Amino acid sequence: MDEEVKERKVDELAALVNGRVAGDGRVVITRIADLENAAEGTIAFVEDAKALSLAQESKASCLIVPEDNAIEGRSCIEAKHPKLAFALVAKILRPPKQNQPAIDRTAVVHETANVDASAFVGSGAYIGARAHVGAEAQIHHGVFIGDDVRIGRGCLIHPNVTVYDNVHLGERVILHAGVVIGADGFGYVRDAAGAYHKFPQVGTVEIEDDVEIGANACVDRAALGVTRIGRGTKIDNFVQIGHNVEIGERVVIAAQTGISGSTVIEDDCVIGGQVGMGDHARVQKGAIVGSKAGILPGKIVRAGSIVWGVPVRPLDEYKRINAYFGRLPQMYDELQELRRQVAEFRSQFDGMNDTDQ
Amino acid sequence: MDEEVKERKVDELAALVNGRVAGDGRVVITRIADLENAAEGTIAFVEDAKALSLAQESKASCLIVPEDNAIEGRSCIEAKHPKLAFALVAKILRPPKQNQPAIDRTAVVHETANVDASAFVGSGAYIGARAHVGAEAQIHHGVFIGDDVRIGRGCLIHPNVTVYDNVHLGERVILHAGVVIGADGFGYVRDAAGAYHKFPQVGTVEIEDDVEIGANACVDRAALGVTRIGRGTKIDNFVQIGHNVEIGERVVIAAQTGISGSTVIEDDCVIGGQVGMGDHARVQKGAIVGSKAGILPGKIVRAGSIVWGVPVRPLDEYKRINAYFGRLPQMYDELQELRRQVAEFRSQFDGMNDTDQ
Amino acid sequence: MDEEVKERKVDELAALVNGRVAGDGRVVITRIADLENAAEGTIAFVEDAKALSLAQESKASCLIVPEDNAIEGRSCIEAKHPKLAFALVAKILRPPKQNQPAIDRTAVVHETANVDASAFVGSGAYIGARAHVGAEAQIHHGVFIGDDVRIGRGCLIHPNVTVYDNVHLGERVILHAGVVIGADGFGYVRDAAGAYHKFPQVGTVEIEDDVEIGANACVDRAALGVTRIGRGTKIDNFVQIGHNVEIGERVVIAAQTGISGSTVIEDDCVIGGQVGMGDHARVQKGAIVGSKAGILPGKIVRAGSIVWGVPVRPLDEYKRINAYFGRLPQMYDELQELRRQVAEFRSQFDGMNDTDQ
Repeated sequence: MDEEVKERKVDELAALVNGRVAGDGRVVITRIADLENAAEGTIAFVEDAKALSLAQESKASCLIVPEDNAIEGRSCIEAKHPKLAFALVAKILRPPKQNQPAIDRTAVVHETANVDASAFVGSGAYIGARAHVGAEAQIHHGVFIGDDVRIGRGCLIHPNVTVYDNVHLGERVILHAGVVIGADGFGYVRDAAGAYHKFPQVGTVEIEDDVEIGANACVDRAALGVTRIGRGTKIDNFVQIGHNVEIGERVVIAAQTGISGSTVIEDDCVIGGQVGMGDHARVQKGAIVGSKAGILPGKIVRAGSIVWGVPVRPLDEYKRINAYFGRLPQMYDELQELRRQVAEFRSQFDGMNDTDQ
Repeated sequence: MDEEVKERKVDELAALVNGRVAGDGRVVITRIADLENAAEGTIAFVEDAKALSLAQESKASCLIVPEDNAIEGRSCIEAKHPKLAFALVAKILRPPKQNQPAIDRTAVVHETANVDASAFVGSGAYIGARAHVGAEAQIHHGVFIGDDVRIGRGCLIHPNVTVYDNVHLGERVILHAGVVIGADGFGYVRDAAGAYHKFPQVGTVEIEDDVEIGANACVDRAALGVTRIGRGTKIDNFVQIGHNVEIGERVVIAAQTGISGSTVIEDDCVIGGQVGMGDHARVQKGAIVGSKAGILPGKIVRAGSIVWGVPVRPLDEYKRINAYFGRLPQMYDELQELRRQVAEFRSQFDGMNDTDQ
Repeated sequence: MDEEVKERKVDELAALVNGRVAGDGRVVITRIADLENAAEGTIAFVEDAKALSLAQESKASCLIVPEDNAIEGRSCIEAKHPKLAFALVAKILRPPKQNQPAIDRTAVVHETANVDASAFVGSGAYIGARAHVGAEAQIHHGVFIGDDVRIGRGCLIHPNVTVYDNVHLGERVILHAGVVIGADGFGYVRDAAGAYHKFPQVGTVEIEDDVEIGANACVDRAALGVTRIGRGTKIDNFVQIGHNVEIGERVVIAAQTGISGSTVIEDDCVIGGQVGMGDHARVQKGAIVGSKAGILPGKIVRAGSIVWGVPVRPLDEYKRINAYFGRLPQMYDELQELRRQVAEFRSQFDGMNDTDQ
């Protein structure tokens, strides 16, 4: 590989993450690694006290460790949150590749498009009429940017992405390969003869700063208004965001989840993988939705709650019910045994009463 | 934006949708909108009587309302089915963008391909050997059209779609970005050593007129015969259609549903999102399958039925069973209490009989 | 179509599959077909004795039949495993199309890339710096091959695939259209203010020989190590393979299944469609996981077991519990009836004892 090597001393890295150096701070670090595969010149991290024994044997030249857990004789950085510190260090030592400003000769840029001089437009990409591509944006191979699209500063658009007309992306948005933003929402009206007519899908999509969207995910344009994804939200591969959906800030959505039209997910929610949400539902601030959950149309998931199952229930209830679900055969057998006992009892009792008479 | 403005009088639009004008029919309409965001010159619709109060405050210049619900002092069109009327009006006022006939200089068209002079072929598209592209078809950026493919009149193929060899599309078919038509079906045969050999996937795909397929969806080619999608069927994003599947006319399939090999879905069915269907199943005419349902291989879903759950059951039964599912902890407690009572009873009864003797 | 016609005598084909000729071995076969659509010159297969009656009416010129099931008066090949024999015959009569070695004039090949002279690079494809494309590999239209990628001999990369930097593919790997290999895994670390920071996703992906990956599927790069897919494994459309996942050899994974980070699937497993696996789970050698199953994070599925449901249970148990699940309303009614009887009984019993005193 051809990447420019970044070099930092342990002292510098510690300062960067507000960590405390224990051991030699002058050690030079050039690469990141995990504990097992670490070699001379690398920095690795120890997530918690349990991982410390593994750390002893690591060949990393520097270890980021939990506070008060420095290892005797090793160069360490003590940090409150070692994994976070490691992520911040990685941004310095292993920054994303930045292509030089250029428009590839095989790219097609509409004469009315406005591409910043510091942007990169790769091979076979297309930039539409009146589109705006901001400073230091990178538009990779084969990407289609439609008419009137706005791509903010520092966006990273991976190969073969499609952005339909009129979509707006904020700054530093990352779209992975194969993402489709702004395709028509799924809305039809049936006539008396049974034929489906397309309901107009002429709204748009707005994606705010620092959103990242995984490979082959889709965000549909609104029918008439705006489909919106809030700042700092992270969306995994294959997620389907329907028309007119509104997603707040700092929401995390795992792979293969689907969100139907006009549903709202408020700030700071965490949504598992393969979740399905019906239309016009609302997941309130900070709620957590377990993987494979199903949310019915119009359902409200309360702020801060944790829900699971199809349809969703509070996690405690879900766990309790599922425990009994596993005991169903036993319950059935007990029930039949009881029925037998009660019938036998009845017959003895009636017999006794007969005797009494 | 650069779209040509369409202008129609309310009288003209009413005639178009068989509606009745109430109020001023000479008002000029140029755009569509929803009630909340409507402005001067727009037309909006009122779905039902409940929405009428919202309509009072709308700034739309014309409202499409349910019959006998015209609003005093406003320009209205009374229609039997306002949402449908609105969809039809939108087709006139906001028609899909139609690119001028052209073949982009960066497109590659095989010398034996037959592209109609009225068609559009965008930047970086490829048209294969002996392929046929019909009149007014639009093949957008980066699309791959394989050898011997047939694209009917008026088709709209969005960017970065892949159509493998030998696939046939009817007229006015819409394929959204990232769609893949005609990839190999998933079929292998295992040998004695455990290795998998590809079962031949050499059939094809036929998609009939007026089908629309959502972004990143896939329709696999048949192993030996034809995978077929009937006229007027609408398929949402991420839907997976396996090899040799047959889908009838006017079927609707929501996002992320998967249909395994050789399954048949008859006309007029409605299939929810994230449904899974095993192979060789059959969903008969007009059936409705709820979101996240699972249909076992070979299962027949009866015509006109509504099914739900994994595995599917009639909706009524599904609802009833699920209600009891939620009461499982209570049932368990009741059962244990009964067992206690019966045991106590038994002991009293036996004691009494001992006394009797 | 323009395919070169392959011609083989029944005798030759029988030798190829270790079959026994019954009837005329000199019949010339040029095409494969299924029983129903077979015509003069075709070969078809009869999977088992049940299908023999259908075979009687088939117009195929040769039938591959189970051993000791040759049909009187027809040219037959008796084979131990007719479907496998048919698959092998199909490889000869209907081999995959092989494009002539060439680099399309619209492709962009980095000056430091190494493309074998026998490889094909299609229109609008891109080959990155220091990438290696092996002998007879076919890189189709619009494909992006990143820097330092290695594509082995005989790989077939369908249109609009994206392979990120540093990924390695073995020999004869097939990637269908829209596949994305090596996109960033989904990993973030939250800071005290609630913002998500990207955990470094700087590992890679290794895909071994003879793997086939279906359309629009994704395999994410490892955070720090390697995401690996073993030799001979077959993956269907829309499958999501998370970062650091390890999949063994000869594993089959059906469509729309998602596998979270660091999960391991050992050799010879069969995974159904729409399955979800949490992170750090392990599916041991030869296990079978039913469609729509859900595997919790960290769960171990035992070697050779068959599991089903959410969360997974052994198939026998799953079936038993589900049978009782269907009887829940009946159980509830029985339970209430028993409660009534016991209460009545209690009242009679207490009354009798009162009498006795």
